[in-house]
Amino acid sequence: MKLLRYGPKGQEKPGLLDGTGTIRDLSGHIADITPEVLSKQGLAKLAALDPESLPAVSGTPRYGVPVNGISKFLAIGTNFSDHARESNMPIPTEPPVFTKFVSCLNGPNDDVMLPKEATKADWEVELGFFIGKQARYVEESQALDYIAGYVLVNDVSERAFQLERGPTWDKGKGFDTFGPVGPWLVTPDEVGDPQNLNMWLDLNGKRMQTGNSNTMIFNCAQIVAYLSRFVTLMPGDLVTTGTPPGVGLGQKPTPIWLKAGDTMHLGIDKLGEQKQKVVAWSRG
Amino acid sequence: MKLLRYGPKGQEKPGLLDGTGTIRDLSGHIADITPEVLSKQGLAKLAALDPESLPAVSGTPRYGVPVNGISKFLAIGTNFSDHARESNMPIPTEPPVFTKFVSCLNGPNDDVMLPKEATKADWEVELGFFIGKQARYVEESQALDYIAGYVLVNDVSERAFQLERGPTWDKGKGFDTFGPVGPWLVTPDEVGDPQNLNMWLDLNGKRMQTGNSNTMIFNCAQIVAYLSRFVTLMPGDLVTTGTPPGVGLGQKPTPIWLKAGDTMHLGIDKLGEQKQKVVAWSRG
Repeated sequence: MKLLRYGPKGQEKPGLLDGTGTIRDLSGHIADITPEVLSKQGLAKLAALDPESLPAVSGTPRYGVPVNGISKFLAIGTNFSDHARESNMPIPTEPPVFTKFVSCLNGPNDDVMLPKEATKADWEVELGFFIGKQARYVEESQALDYIAGYVLVNDVSERAFQLERGPTWDKGKGFDTFGPVGPWLVTPDEVGDPQNLNMWLDLNGKRMQTGNSNTMIFNCAQIVAYLSRFVTLMPGDLVTTGTPPGVGLGQKPTPIWLKAGDTMHLGIDKLGEQKQKVVAWSRG
Repeated sequence: MKLLRYGPKGQEKPGLLDGTGTIRDLSGHIADITPEVLSKQGLAKLAALDPESLPAVSGTPRYGVPVNGISKFLAIGTNFSDHARESNMPIPTEPPVFTKFVSCLNGPNDDVMLPKEATKADWEVELGFFIGKQARYVEESQALDYIAGYVLVNDVSERAFQLERGPTWDKGKGFDTFGPVGPWLVTPDEVGDPQNLNMWLDLNGKRMQTGNSNTMIFNCAQIVAYLSRFVTLMPGDLVTTGTPPGVGLGQKPTPIWLKAGDTMHLGIDKLGEQKQKVVAWSRG
């Protein structure tokens, strides 16, 4: 099942994508896709619906972030060994954890806005997942059961804010629009093995990142189990799991940074695609 | 005005503390103290009420976190030069920023629970403030106008998680119960100069921390202006501003860490007091 939210920003309606690629309106059944909808019971209720019984949505509406009411947006850093090397960072022995501020959440195809003082803005295609039930001290063997669905994330970053204004990374990860998420939450039954998904990102039509989640240092189950020792994960929390090589920071001989007018186009197997235009800061 | 929420966890009602120290029930006027209530208009409406016209609350109810619906809980590190020295950290040239996960929010007198694997849990009395209106690229000269009120915070930390499991601090700052906040949100008119407030913390009856917000390296206005260059602050966001010397990490000749059975008692001029019992982890 592919759950989504569609419509103008702040007025999104709940929907699902049927097998033919048509958006079906869920608003006759649920008011919105909230953390409560991500429980086993909530998802089972939606899965039991016949998509053909739901109104088809015409046109090509905007996609929003597929869940409303995300309370935490956590991220794992340097989780691909090749990316760690290109970034001149050590291979981690346990998952590095940082925060993307929830106010950075952005629709998957909405513009990405550069901060006024940005000099080193960068892209990161990532596999994200939504938590379906409260997780604290979860065993790795049980951990995937806490994931309600997977999602495509662009972990947009400003490297000068992140790395030159320490001691934490949070300053460079949470500016408005730095968290494109979507188009869909895809339930685990449709994804199959989350550790065998191709990932890619093009900048202005040129392939920059190519990877597969099978080279993640810490897999999704390990990440859930690890995080749950430090913080209680709540339904609707979003975790993004790190990026493969090919970010701007890692380009040789010199890094490449995002500038106004650029286009990012990215995708992950089974999770769909995103396309964002980069724009200069404006008082939106 | 002193705004508060009282009653059992998850069932708190809105209230205010009148001039005689009696809690007055606000639930006839507002459903809860939410981010919207912190606007100029929202606060003015409450300030216009005659406290004596509100039902007095009898007994000594539990206090909750004074605002419901906090979307971000941001923190400034090593913001007192003496504390930086005792922690063997450099004096920062710009505010270090980290995140306390919102799931760590806790009533001011609720138990503080040690994580299962905690070895270096520590205390930090801090001056916090709530944002009243959206802040992005705010000038320092205007910044205090974005603060709806001040509040006492205990920035409970686990130093091994924070400092030995880098590269960020977030792992050691956000466990459940690590964010006691309250008892009251005190509006700026009652606080006066936020940079001249005495701060203290006792552990098991012994004074450990003594400080005054006049020795903060970055003051509240500078913090609002600085943060607003990296993240949009939203109504109801909570920012805590760093701790004076005397934390467990800084004790000589050897650090002192929290253990089950300990009592923390802390306060800041005009913002009230907190008292927490430290308890071992249990599946609560």
